[in-house]
Amino acid sequence: MTFTRFIDLSGPEIERFGEDTVAVLPVGAVEQHGPHLPVATDYYMAEAVAEGAARLAGESCDITLLPGLAYTKSDEHAWSPGTLWLSARTLLSVLDDLGRSLAAGPVRRLAFLNAHGGNSALLGVALRELRTRHGLRTFLLHAALPADQGGASPAAEFGMGVHGGLKETAAMLHLHPDLVDMTQARRSVPEHLTAYEHIGFGKPVSFGWTSDDFATGNGLIGDPTGATPELGRKLVDASVSAAAAALRECARFLPDRPPTP
Amino acid sequence: MTFTRFIDLSGPEIERFGEDTVAVLPVGAVEQHGPHLPVATDYYMAEAVAEGAARLAGESCDITLLPGLAYTKSDEHAWSPGTLWLSARTLLSVLDDLGRSLAAGPVRRLAFLNAHGGNSALLGVALRELRTRHGLRTFLLHAALPADQGGASPAAEFGMGVHGGLKETAAMLHLHPDLVDMTQARRSVPEHLTAYEHIGFGKPVSFGWTSDDFATGNGLIGDPTGATPELGRKLVDASVSAAAAALRECARFLPDRPPTP
Amino acid sequence: MTFTRFIDLSGPEIERFGEDTVAVLPVGAVEQHGPHLPVATDYYMAEAVAEGAARLAGESCDITLLPGLAYTKSDEHAWSPGTLWLSARTLLSVLDDLGRSLAAGPVRRLAFLNAHGGNSALLGVALRELRTRHGLRTFLLHAALPADQGGASPAAEFGMGVHGGLKETAAMLHLHPDLVDMTQARRSVPEHLTAYEHIGFGKPVSFGWTSDDFATGNGLIGDPTGATPELGRKLVDASVSAAAAALRECARFLPDRPPTP
Amino acid sequence: MTFTRFIDLSGPEIERFGEDTVAVLPVGAVEQHGPHLPVATDYYMAEAVAEGAARLAGESCDITLLPGLAYTKSDEHAWSPGTLWLSARTLLSVLDDLGRSLAAGPVRRLAFLNAHGGNSALLGVALRELRTRHGLRTFLLHAALPADQGGASPAAEFGMGVHGGLKETAAMLHLHPDLVDMTQARRSVPEHLTAYEHIGFGKPVSFGWTSDDFATGNGLIGDPTGATPELGRKLVDASVSAAAAALRECARFLPDRPPTP
Amino acid sequence: MTFTRFIDLSGPEIERFGEDTVAVLPVGAVEQHGPHLPVATDYYMAEAVAEGAARLAGESCDITLLPGLAYTKSDEHAWSPGTLWLSARTLLSVLDDLGRSLAAGPVRRLAFLNAHGGNSALLGVALRELRTRHGLRTFLLHAALPADQGGASPAAEFGMGVHGGLKETAAMLHLHPDLVDMTQARRSVPEHLTAYEHIGFGKPVSFGWTSDDFATGNGLIGDPTGATPELGRKLVDASVSAAAAALRECARFLPDRPPTP
Amino acid sequence: MTFTRFIDLSGPEIERFGEDTVAVLPVGAVEQHGPHLPVATDYYMAEAVAEGAARLAGESCDITLLPGLAYTKSDEHAWSPGTLWLSARTLLSVLDDLGRSLAAGPVRRLAFLNAHGGNSALLGVALRELRTRHGLRTFLLHAALPADQGGASPAAEFGMGVHGGLKETAAMLHLHPDLVDMTQARRSVPEHLTAYEHIGFGKPVSFGWTSDDFATGNGLIGDPTGATPELGRKLVDASVSAAAAALRECARFLPDRPPTP
Repeated sequence: MTFTRFIDLSGPEIERFGEDTVAVLPVGAVEQHGPHLPVATDYYMAEAVAEGAARLAGESCDITLLPGLAYTKSDEHAWSPGTLWLSARTLLSVLDDLGRSLAAGPVRRLAFLNAHGGNSALLGVALRELRTRHGLRTFLLHAALPADQGGASPAAEFGMGVHGGLKETAAMLHLHPDLVDMTQARRSVPEHLTAYEHIGFGKPVSFGWTSDDFATGNGLIGDPTGATPELGRKLVDASVSAAAAALRECARFLPDRPPTP
Repeated sequence: MTFTRFIDLSGPEIERFGEDTVAVLPVGAVEQHGPHLPVATDYYMAEAVAEGAARLAGESCDITLLPGLAYTKSDEHAWSPGTLWLSARTLLSVLDDLGRSLAAGPVRRLAFLNAHGGNSALLGVALRELRTRHGLRTFLLHAALPADQGGASPAAEFGMGVHGGLKETAAMLHLHPDLVDMTQARRSVPEHLTAYEHIGFGKPVSFGWTSDDFATGNGLIGDPTGATPELGRKLVDASVSAAAAALRECARFLPDRPPTP
Repeated sequence: MTFTRFIDLSGPEIERFGEDTVAVLPVGAVEQHGPHLPVATDYYMAEAVAEGAARLAGESCDITLLPGLAYTKSDEHAWSPGTLWLSARTLLSVLDDLGRSLAAGPVRRLAFLNAHGGNSALLGVALRELRTRHGLRTFLLHAALPADQGGASPAAEFGMGVHGGLKETAAMLHLHPDLVDMTQARRSVPEHLTAYEHIGFGKPVSFGWTSDDFATGNGLIGDPTGATPELGRKLVDASVSAAAAALRECARFLPDRPPTP
Repeated sequence: MTFTRFIDLSGPEIERFGEDTVAVLPVGAVEQHGPHLPVATDYYMAEAVAEGAARLAGESCDITLLPGLAYTKSDEHAWSPGTLWLSARTLLSVLDDLGRSLAAGPVRRLAFLNAHGGNSALLGVALRELRTRHGLRTFLLHAALPADQGGASPAAEFGMGVHGGLKETAAMLHLHPDLVDMTQARRSVPEHLTAYEHIGFGKPVSFGWTSDDFATGNGLIGDPTGATPELGRKLVDASVSAAAAALRECARFLPDRPPTP
Repeated sequence: MTFTRFIDLSGPEIERFGEDTVAVLPVGAVEQHGPHLPVATDYYMAEAVAEGAARLAGESCDITLLPGLAYTKSDEHAWSPGTLWLSARTLLSVLDDLGRSLAAGPVRRLAFLNAHGGNSALLGVALRELRTRHGLRTFLLHAALPADQGGASPAAEFGMGVHGGLKETAAMLHLHPDLVDMTQARRSVPEHLTAYEHIGFGKPVSFGWTSDDFATGNGLIGDPTGATPELGRKLVDASVSAAAAALRECARFLPDRPPTP
Repeated sequence: MTFTRFIDLSGPEIERFGEDTVAVLPVGAVEQHGPHLPVATDYYMAEAVAEGAARLAGESCDITLLPGLAYTKSDEHAWSPGTLWLSARTLLSVLDDLGRSLAAGPVRRLAFLNAHGGNSALLGVALRELRTRHGLRTFLLHAALPADQGGASPAAEFGMGVHGGLKETAAMLHLHPDLVDMTQARRSVPEHLTAYEHIGFGKPVSFGWTSDDFATGNGLIGDPTGATPELGRKLVDASVSAAAAALRECARFLPDRPPTP
């Protein structure tokens, strides 16, 4: 029962993995996060939570950490310099190729650990494709569930802290304080959306948006101003714990029976 | 302020649509629904709710109903005869082509009314692509939110009534009673999944599954046995009302300001 | 020996089809048909002829009717609002996916019933692809053979009644008189094309055209002015009879031997 | 008014072409033609007729001959060694790329001269795509219209001389007698198909076939036994004359007016 | 031990090829070569060297010559009329389709004989794809190694005679003197590139260029002015000899053992 | 004049890059490297040389380091567990998407720093595509030129140290000694290839191979046995220096003039 970095092993070592080994793929993004956060925010978050959780879960099961994907689907931020992104078709092909070549070896379980809400839908598609095409047991974990996908969001953000808001900023203050410039942090909550009953972040009707649709001026959707390293530490720790617990379950999940004790 | 069927109009009539007209695309599926329901279950549901809601909303705004998509993404049921499905790439291309050609005319708002949970992720991808590629304001409405995507599910189904269960069966008993064979209806709830804490329908960790993964024997995931036409009528009526209210909002939604009164 | 609607059956019922069952796929279009006809003209025609023929043929063999394709290849009408169309590649993928998933069950015979001349070439390609890739016996029937593909065309149309002319208008006056506005019907025959000896509709040299290439002003190619419901009835009845007879043959066609009596 | 070989010109010379110049693309095939004919039969036929017609038409208009396509869509002969073929998607991309790059220069008219019946449908699709995507005026000429596409076929072949039969064999005896082995020529007409009323070569219902579907044993569909060089010469001369006349018309065809005298 | 033209054989004759037969595919280009050379320069060179070498090698092993590819990847010359080219994806698909269909018969060895430097990288990709996907032993021969890919280049060209320079012009003066207009030949060597130490033709750092990037004015990169037919004859003869020797080795190459004597 | 990590900057900071900024993309691989090296060998090498060179060059020009690509084209090692790879088409799409989105901001220069010889050909294709499609000035640098692409190779490896041999092993002993197991290092040089005159690594005729084609038993091609950390340090230092010098030139390279002093 160990944690390993997949890429630090040799081919023959990888050949010895068992069918309960869980490969973990961090899925980040390189995209504008307003003027106070680096474009790597989601990538750093994915890497940090994935590694933390993989190490923790690796104490009781076989977890192997894959190199994370930095470039993913960020078309909602395509208007901004600094956003480097793959089209949906390209990213689907990348995931399919990874699934195909992983499944050519002994690994049978693959968990995406995603930190960019804009990837969730596509990863949902990939979950099933890798299951049906390559026979992998696939799982989707979130570094932190976005506010519009069932995650909590502070009242001050009206449930709209989906991009560069309180939680992401806090997490970065904890993980990479040198990369955060709080003097540039401005509240950017499109409060007028609360006047819609059905359509909006986390409401029953989702909609196609880009981050410059809301006239908030800086590409953020949320309120970073109250973020602190302490909050960030708590959030990251909680994410790591939750993801580790989930990974332990991924290692023994079988859809046709309960977990074996 | 009217309801129209898009395809019953001539080209010059369609040219007169305004920018607040909402085109509604029913999105169904043709896929096995166990031995007691027809493979068209989701298609009939999408069509019925879309038409009902479009007519209702059409009383106060311009709603134009498009021919629905019968064939969509049903790879989780590919193992069964009767499942006719498009790959994710094909369906994405279909939606992209429809968005492109719709946007070549005056319509600027497109609402998907989806009745198949297996489409939700891909439609989420398409929402954004049609927004960024073709400038359409896009919306995703659910005929009935699946149990694993935030919808309610009766306690007896343990939150797993995602396919051919109580609600879908009831709706079909109301809409097309002649196509339902309740003598074949059997409870098929993979209760053992409740023993998993993190992974499962509606749980934080989603997973790649096919409907024959659960050893329930008939491709269902849910318990249709208690379904009645009365329950079906209530569910359909509620769906129509909710979708109509949402469509009215789609007709005036602008992301950078509150609704105009 | 029966007629069935494929989508009204359950998966287990579809599993019981035999190898002589013919699945019929109506192939329509949603495209401008001038100011007097709805954009659904070809779709309604495909559906009407397919259902009529399938019911008739179903008296003596197993015919199962699939949901028709509304959105197909209408790039020659892309200039007009109301034309919703798929690219050649997308439509080829749709047909391939349908063939693949149909062939995963017991059905081995698939007949396209096409009502849009602009689809004929692509369906010709698909006929062979579904044969070679998925082992299906495939057939292409025309709801009414277009004037430029070997069909008859009244002298007054100079053999050019290919789009919204006498026959299509008459058929719609019979099928959906409420959707036809004969006050808008205008003769739009590019008679100058008769001065070309080799190139033209139904001539030896076919050419790449769009329906706004001919300077006729309304997107029509034909003369709808003399259309009557009676003519329409006769045309539709004849199409149904011919298609039914063809479907009966599709059910027993084997390329390496004559029909068994 | 001249005939040129496109590839023998320099870039600056090609830049001087006018908008009435017709580029001619011979479209052949490399596919089994039974034991008595070379796999290049259609390629040689396309090249011979294209060059002959281009030279003849070049006496009175600007015709530029492109290098022909040897490898095209021969999936119906994929079962046989010697058949080298492109998928429909690949060939469509080839044609699209050629149209795109040709249209980047001054040429505005492109005529396909096709000698393989199995290409006709796909070329029909390409005709329109190159028209709508690249603004080219496109034309499809046949080296010899196949028997199942409106061409004449001797009675002895029952209208089925579609592959390696009397006419193709005769043409090759004229063009490349050294490549024909008449001692291997055998009649291979699937006469049993005449017993079908609707389905068959040249009948109203086309079908998906491969050349080994008919149990004739050698991949031919036709009767080459009576072929003579004299017949071949007559056929080729007639094809050249007809194609030349058509090319002259291609050079002045405009869809919105009659030919200028 | 013979030389054959693949396309002059019948299917059954091709079926008799052995596993040591080498199929040779000439790979040319149709692209601007300045004002003094025809756009077919690379195509003629590929055809001449391939045929010469195939005939020579065919004296001692089985070599079968395929029809050459005229249209290939010339995106660096896309700015000029006369350049007809395929995208990288299209050409890769063409090569894959040819490999797939060739491998469906008995041939197991395929040699590309390339005369266009702009194809080398893509052919390098195809070498491996055809090996892994279709099991073919694949080889890449150059009609003449370009100056920037290891080939010699006269001092007067500063190692930059990569397009329409001394050697290509000389070869064409030998092969097709009627197609060369030496009165138009001008020196076009971007000598300023010699001032770069790392980046440039044949230097350690390759770069993305188009042939109009260098401000030489006519699309050439080289100095054709000193070309003579005698030099051309020597170059072509040397290329033919070298390619023939290489083809002989291709016929017996096995990666896991030395050549058998 | 600075070195930056692209992803550590905010969108507005990235917007301030100038047209001489060079973005550096490390291109590695995750593929079997025999039993003594980790599958990340090329990835670590690419990252180390890229970062070293970028920092060094950043002292005198603007260099911004992008997150490297771990997963690339390793089809020649697809047979081995541990090889995770993208198809040529997928990787080309990834590079195209990155180029497109990078070019949407101010950066105009992109340098690939590649450490996997199997990527060279595809990167050569991408160099030109990103130049012509997105207007980027593109450059290809090698962390260490492979022995079969012009790089030096010790005599003991007969010029075949292309995969896991002396130099790669030495570099890893320097960079990540903990990941190298010299007890597993075995000489694996297919010496029999020297008996071929034309075909082979670094010879005029390249060929399609996979790393299990050579019967050397462990997937290596080279001789790691003499590797030392000292040699590795020298090699890496030399690579860093050379790449830094090249990057400085990339920052001022213009194809139509010499470098400005």
